[in-house]
Amino acid sequence: MDKPQKVNLQDKLALFSEHWSPKTVGRLNDYEIKVVKIQGEFVWHTHDDTDELFLVLDGQLTIQLRDQDVELGPGEMFIVPRGVEHCPRATGEVAALLIEPQGVVNTGNAGGALTAEPQSL
Amino acid sequence: MDKPQKVNLQDKLALFSEHWSPKTVGRLNDYEIKVVKIQGEFVWHTHDDTDELFLVLDGQLTIQLRDQDVELGPGEMFIVPRGVEHCPRATGEVAALLIEPQGVVNTGNAGGALTAEPQSL
Repeated sequence: MDKPQKVNLQDKLALFSEHWSPKTVGRLNDYEIKVVKIQGEFVWHTHDDTDELFLVLDGQLTIQLRDQDVELGPGEMFIVPRGVEHCPRATGEVAALLIEPQGVVNTGNAGGALTAEPQSL
Repeated sequence: MDKPQKVNLQDKLALFSEHWSPKTVGRLNDYEIKVVKIQGEFVWHTHDDTDELFLVLDGQLTIQLRDQDVELGPGEMFIVPRGVEHCPRATGEVAALLIEPQGVVNTGNAGGALTAEPQSL
């Protein structure tokens, strides 16, 4: 087995520019640690089987829920509970860390054009 | 159920000063998201059943492994694989995010005086 390596999140973010395409940068048991760049509005969707963690690294992110908007800046975290419909939105570009179980699809139950293939960096 | 709330990590860190006493600030399925302040040297220990994620928020952290020292600054992450003996060390104070399954004991198989009771903020 290769020696385990540290991960510099900004170095990983510098490797890509596309939005809404999470990149796996680490694995914790059966969970994946991902970085993602976000700009514009995503699709409303739900993950029925899992919570989903967003930690903002740079920028200002709004997680729209049906009953509130959650506004996140750098160093702020929000965990979307399983089954809760949500839609991320950002006016400027945002960099965020995502944590969720392996195999979770970014668009959840919604599918569509923004569905991303799994990618690792 | 209460509405889910965002978590500002620096606000949580401002609520305590003791070292080596992780505080749970969020739950992701059966995992806990914790913040911890670190200074000095911990004990060598192993978690036989789980990986453990360290993400440095402030300061410079060394994760000593038996075959290498992993040096982490802000925005750098290291996942200690299950079964790998490790010992965190910091000369100055460090603030870090930890992620691990609910119920993991901070001192793993080592026990002793630095074993912390579970606490939430």
